[in-house]
Amino acid sequence: MKNRILTFLLLIYMMSHSFSFGQSRPRDLGIHIGVIPTGLQNSITDVAGVKVGHTTLIQGANVRTGVTAIIPHPGNLFQSKVQAAVFVGNGFGKLAGTTQIEELGNIESPIILTNTLGVAAGIEGVVESTLSQPRNENVQSVNAVVGETNDGYLNDIRGRHVKAEDVVAAISNAKDGKVLEGNVGAGTGTVCFGFKGGIGTSSRKLPESLGGYTIGVLVQTNFGGVLQIDGVPIGVELGDYSFKDHLVSVDGSCMIVVATDAPVNERNLKRIAQRAMMGLAKTGGIASNGSGDYVIAFSNFLGNLISHNSPSSNSKNPPTSKMMT
Amino acid sequence: MKNRILTFLLLIYMMSHSFSFGQSRPRDLGIHIGVIPTGLQNSITDVAGVKVGHTTLIQGANVRTGVTAIIPHPGNLFQSKVQAAVFVGNGFGKLAGTTQIEELGNIESPIILTNTLGVAAGIEGVVESTLSQPRNENVQSVNAVVGETNDGYLNDIRGRHVKAEDVVAAISNAKDGKVLEGNVGAGTGTVCFGFKGGIGTSSRKLPESLGGYTIGVLVQTNFGGVLQIDGVPIGVELGDYSFKDHLVSVDGSCMIVVATDAPVNERNLKRIAQRAMMGLAKTGGIASNGSGDYVIAFSNFLGNLISHNSPSSNSKNPPTSKMMT
Amino acid sequence: MKNRILTFLLLIYMMSHSFSFGQSRPRDLGIHIGVIPTGLQNSITDVAGVKVGHTTLIQGANVRTGVTAIIPHPGNLFQSKVQAAVFVGNGFGKLAGTTQIEELGNIESPIILTNTLGVAAGIEGVVESTLSQPRNENVQSVNAVVGETNDGYLNDIRGRHVKAEDVVAAISNAKDGKVLEGNVGAGTGTVCFGFKGGIGTSSRKLPESLGGYTIGVLVQTNFGGVLQIDGVPIGVELGDYSFKDHLVSVDGSCMIVVATDAPVNERNLKRIAQRAMMGLAKTGGIASNGSGDYVIAFSNFLGNLISHNSPSSNSKNPPTSKMMT
Amino acid sequence: MKNRILTFLLLIYMMSHSFSFGQSRPRDLGIHIGVIPTGLQNSITDVAGVKVGHTTLIQGANVRTGVTAIIPHPGNLFQSKVQAAVFVGNGFGKLAGTTQIEELGNIESPIILTNTLGVAAGIEGVVESTLSQPRNENVQSVNAVVGETNDGYLNDIRGRHVKAEDVVAAISNAKDGKVLEGNVGAGTGTVCFGFKGGIGTSSRKLPESLGGYTIGVLVQTNFGGVLQIDGVPIGVELGDYSFKDHLVSVDGSCMIVVATDAPVNERNLKRIAQRAMMGLAKTGGIASNGSGDYVIAFSNFLGNLISHNSPSSNSKNPPTSKMMT
Repeated sequence: MKNRILTFLLLIYMMSHSFSFGQSRPRDLGIHIGVIPTGLQNSITDVAGVKVGHTTLIQGANVRTGVTAIIPHPGNLFQSKVQAAVFVGNGFGKLAGTTQIEELGNIESPIILTNTLGVAAGIEGVVESTLSQPRNENVQSVNAVVGETNDGYLNDIRGRHVKAEDVVAAISNAKDGKVLEGNVGAGTGTVCFGFKGGIGTSSRKLPESLGGYTIGVLVQTNFGGVLQIDGVPIGVELGDYSFKDHLVSVDGSCMIVVATDAPVNERNLKRIAQRAMMGLAKTGGIASNGSGDYVIAFSNFLGNLISHNSPSSNSKNPPTSKMMT
Repeated sequence: MKNRILTFLLLIYMMSHSFSFGQSRPRDLGIHIGVIPTGLQNSITDVAGVKVGHTTLIQGANVRTGVTAIIPHPGNLFQSKVQAAVFVGNGFGKLAGTTQIEELGNIESPIILTNTLGVAAGIEGVVESTLSQPRNENVQSVNAVVGETNDGYLNDIRGRHVKAEDVVAAISNAKDGKVLEGNVGAGTGTVCFGFKGGIGTSSRKLPESLGGYTIGVLVQTNFGGVLQIDGVPIGVELGDYSFKDHLVSVDGSCMIVVATDAPVNERNLKRIAQRAMMGLAKTGGIASNGSGDYVIAFSNFLGNLISHNSPSSNSKNPPTSKMMT
Repeated sequence: MKNRILTFLLLIYMMSHSFSFGQSRPRDLGIHIGVIPTGLQNSITDVAGVKVGHTTLIQGANVRTGVTAIIPHPGNLFQSKVQAAVFVGNGFGKLAGTTQIEELGNIESPIILTNTLGVAAGIEGVVESTLSQPRNENVQSVNAVVGETNDGYLNDIRGRHVKAEDVVAAISNAKDGKVLEGNVGAGTGTVCFGFKGGIGTSSRKLPESLGGYTIGVLVQTNFGGVLQIDGVPIGVELGDYSFKDHLVSVDGSCMIVVATDAPVNERNLKRIAQRAMMGLAKTGGIASNGSGDYVIAFSNFLGNLISHNSPSSNSKNPPTSKMMT
Repeated sequence: MKNRILTFLLLIYMMSHSFSFGQSRPRDLGIHIGVIPTGLQNSITDVAGVKVGHTTLIQGANVRTGVTAIIPHPGNLFQSKVQAAVFVGNGFGKLAGTTQIEELGNIESPIILTNTLGVAAGIEGVVESTLSQPRNENVQSVNAVVGETNDGYLNDIRGRHVKAEDVVAAISNAKDGKVLEGNVGAGTGTVCFGFKGGIGTSSRKLPESLGGYTIGVLVQTNFGGVLQIDGVPIGVELGDYSFKDHLVSVDGSCMIVVATDAPVNERNLKRIAQRAMMGLAKTGGIASNGSGDYVIAFSNFLGNLISHNSPSSNSKNPPTSKMMT
C-alpha cells in the first residue's frame, strides 16, 4: 500500500515538472500496471515473429510525421495470411482494409500506421512491397491495412510528405527485439492528453499453466481526455483535462495493434480487440466524437495461418479457412 | 492531492473490513468520481420523465431474484417511441429485442432487467402490459426489451420464480425521484468482484453553456475482474482479484441502461452506449468470456419521439423517423 | 426453351384459377428451380440429423397459429452445440437469441418458429425442454432461438394461444424424412403475396467432386412483393402485386432456417445466411419496411460440434471453439 | 402475356447470337423491368444534382481500365456533406472510407470507382481535389470513398496505370444528363456472366402521391452466376453459367451506388442499400466467395445536408447531424 502512495506522489511530481521520460518507461520507475507479468521486452515483438519498423520524417520546422509498420510474421504474408479482426472503437478515421478483414477474417500484408492524409501512400507502399515479393508474381489483389491519426497540429499534413517509398522503407527495416517508442515513425507528430504523444508498446505473458501465450500491443497515441496512469488522476491533479473549460477539443485518435501467438480464431480476435478499448479507457481516454479509435488484432499461431493456395483458391480467391477445405 | 490519499486509505480500510455501505454511496463518503457534476439525485431518474420500478423476490433460503423496470417516459411508449440503440459489449447473454432496436432505432416499451431464465416472463409481462394499455387495443406486435444477468449463485434460478405478473408489478410501481439501489429488483441475487452486487445508478449534468442536458445510468452488476474505485486498486490491495490464482472464474455480466434528455438520434445513442463499456472498464471490469455485457441507451427528448401513427404506418409498420414523412 | 414457355403458361393458368396445390410442389409439376440437384426429399431434413416438428393450433373461427421446431442434430444440443450464425435481412422482428449466436458462433437449443406474440412461450418451452434433458441438471443458462412472423390477419394473435407446452410438443414430435408444408405449425396462419403462405422447405446437394455436401432450407413465409416463380412474373401477369395501387401494405416477414452438413464455421455460415436473402428476392419478396426477415444458419458437421465441457468451460462458460482449447 | 413470351424469345436470340447492344438498352428493345416507372434518363443523374464523370484508359493491347466518379451534389461536398450509408454484400474488396461513413452517417467527397490496385490513386485524387477546392484551405482530413472491382482479366492491373490525375479528371468532367454506359471509366475492363461487363445505370421515380422522389443506381459490373434478364434464364438456356462444369470460377465483384433525393436519413439509407443486393440477385448474381459486392447509398435532399461548420465542429470534428446542434 505504501508503494502505491509513493507511485502516486512520484507521478504527480514528474508530470507537473515536465519531466522528460526519454526512452525510459513507467515500469523503469517502479510503476507496475496490471496483474499479469510482461514479456521479455514488454513490447509487441515479444510475440515471436512480429517485427516493427519505422520511417521518421523530420524536415525543417514543419514536417514531423512518419510511418510505422507492424509485420505479423517473417514469411510471405500474402501466401500465408494471419487470422485477424478489426474492432472500431470510434470510426472517425480512414483505416483501409476493414471490410475484407471482417469478411475473410485474415490479414495478408504488413499493417501500416501513418498520418491521415498519408493513407494513399500507405496503400501504395503495401501494394508495391507485396507485388514485388518472390512468389507473388501473379498477385492482382492486395488488401492493404493502413491506419492513421491526424498529426496536423505539429506537422504540415497538407503537404503530404509521406511517400510510398517511406512505407516500403518502414517495412524493409522492421526488426524484432526492442521497439523504439515515442517520437518515432507514425508517432513523430502526435499529441496526447496535452502532452507529446507517439508510439508505445507493451506485452503480457500468461503463465505456462494457462498456455504460456503472449499478447503484445502497439499504439499510435493522439487522443485526449482526463489522463490517469495506473489509476492516478494526473490530469485532474494538474488541472489539465477535457471539459475543464467546458468544451476544450479533445479530438485526436488512437490506433491500437494487438498481436498474439495464442491459437485464437478471427471471431475471438475480434473479442480481444474489443477489450483493447477498455484499456484505452483506463488511461483516461474518452473516445471523443472526432476520434478515430481502431483496434487491429491478429494471431500468428502457426497452425492457424491460411494458405493462399487452398483448393478453392484462384487468382482473387483465397481460402477462407482450413475448415472450408 | 491530500484528499486523494485520504480517499485511497479510506477505501482500502472499508473494503478490507467488510464495511456495509447500506444505502450510503461513495459520494456520501467524499469520493467524487469524474469531472462533471451529478444531477440532483445522482440517478437515472434525474433525466426528467424516467421512472424506475422494482419487484424483489425473497422467499425461503434460496429465492433471491427480482425484476427492475426502467420506463423511458411517462406516456404511452408504444404510441410515442423513444429513439434508442443497443451496444453489445460482450454478447454472451439473452437480451431480447435487439434486432428491432438496431433496425428501427427505437424502443416502444419499458426496459426490463431480470435473471437469465426469467427473460420469457419479462417478455410476457411487457406484452401483457402493452396490450392492456388504453389506445393499444389494436396492437399486434410489441418489441419487448428484456435484459438479464445470471443470479444462480445466490438464487434458485432453475426454479424460474419470476412470473409475468412480477414484471407487470415492477412496471406499475415505477416512480421518479430516489432509486433504491443494491439488493433490490433484478439486483437481489447478483454478485460483483467477489462482493455483493446489485442495482446501482448515477447521473451527470452538463453546464447550461453546453446545453444543460442530463445523462443517467442504471446498472445491474454481476461481474468480476480487478476492482478499482476511482482509480484506487481495491482488488489488488486486498489480494482478491481475477487471475490471482490463475483462472478463477470471473464470469457474470453487466446490464447498463443509459437515459438522456439530449436531442441525440439513434446513431449517436449507439456511440454513447459504446462509451458505457469504457466506464465498466474503469471499475476494473474485464468483460470476461462468459459475461453478457450490454448497453441500452435512449433519449426521451420530446422533439425526437416517434409517433406510431405516422403516414407510412399500418398495423405493424411504425414510422421510422420524422425524416421519412 | 419450349419447356420454359410451357412452364410459363402453366404457372399463369394455375395461379389465375386459384389452383390448389395441396401438398404437391412445383417440382411435381415439372418446374425445376435452379441449376443444382435437390436432396432426396428436397427438404431441410436431407441434411442428415436434422429433424422438424410442428404443433398446429386450429380452434374455432379465429385461432390459426402454431409452432415449428427445427432440431439441428439428434443429440443433446446444449452439450454439443452447432456452429451457427444469424443474418438480419430486415430487423423488424423479435427473433430471440441473436446476440449470443453472434458472439459465440453457436446454437445450443432447438430453433423455434411461432407467431409474434408467442416468443415468450417459445423461450419458455425451449428452457423447459433443455433443463429437463438428462445431463443438463446443472444448466442455469440457455440461449433460446425463437423466430416469429405475424399471423394476426388470420389468427387471434392477441389471445396468445401458443403455450410453452405447445413448443415442447413440437420439439418432441420432430422427426426426419418428409416435412409437412403449407398450413401447418408456425405457417398455419401466415399469408404471402396475397395468397395463403405457410411452411416450405427445399434442399440442394453438391456433386461428390465438390464434397457432396447438402444444404437445406425451411421457411415460414408471411411476406409480400411482386410474386415470381422461377422467373415467371405471376404477380404482374395477374395484376396483383405491391405498389399496383400505390402503397398497398406489403408487410409481413420471412423466417429462413438454413442447415448444412458442410464443415463451414460460423463466419462462413453468416455468409451463407446472407445469400438466403438473395433467394427471397428471386421469389419477388422485397423486404418491405415492416418485414422481419431473418436467416438462421447452422452446420451440424460432426467435427465442428462444440462441447460444453471444454477446459475453459464453467457453469455459464461454454467453450467458444476448438481453437481456444 | 404475349409480350412476355416475345421478350423471352428476343432475349435468347440476341444473347445467343452475340448481338451487340452498343449504347442501346433493354428498354429500347421493349423489355420493361419492374413495376415502377423510370426517371427521364433512366439513370442515376435523374436524381437532381448528381453528376457522373469517367476517365477511360485504353493503351496498347493491355491497358483497359479507368475511373468513374459520382458526385452527390454540385456544391462543396466537404462543407455540405450528404447523409450516406454502406452495405457490405460480400466484403472481399478494398472499398475505402467505410468506417467513417458508418460512424458519422455521411459522405464528404465524390465517390470513386476504379480497379483493385487503383484504390491508392483514387484516394490521392480525392484528397487532391478536396484540398484544392475553395473554402477547404484548412481541411486536414478527408474521408475518400473509393470502390473497385478487379479488371485484371482484360487489363494489365499490376501496371497500376490509374493515377491521381485520372481521378481528378473524372471528377472534373462529371456532368448531369445522359450517362455513358458499358466499356467506359471504371467499367472499361470488367466482365460479367462471361460477357463483357461495364458501367450501367437506371432510375425509378415514385408517383407524386407517394412523394415523387427519385432513386437512381449506377453499377460497375464484374461478376458471375446464372444470368437472367427480367426473369428470363439466359444463362441456362445458353448453357453458360456457374456450376455448369462444377466449380467454374464466378468471382468478380459489383460496386453499386444508389442516389436519392428522398429525405431519408443514414439509417434508412443503409436499409435501402441492403435491398440493392436483392436487385443483384435478380440478375442471377450469386455473390460468390471472391466477390467484393458493396452498396453505397446517399441522399442529397437539401434539408438533410450536414454543414461542416456546426457549433460542435473543429478542425477534424464535423457535426454528426442536425439533431446534435
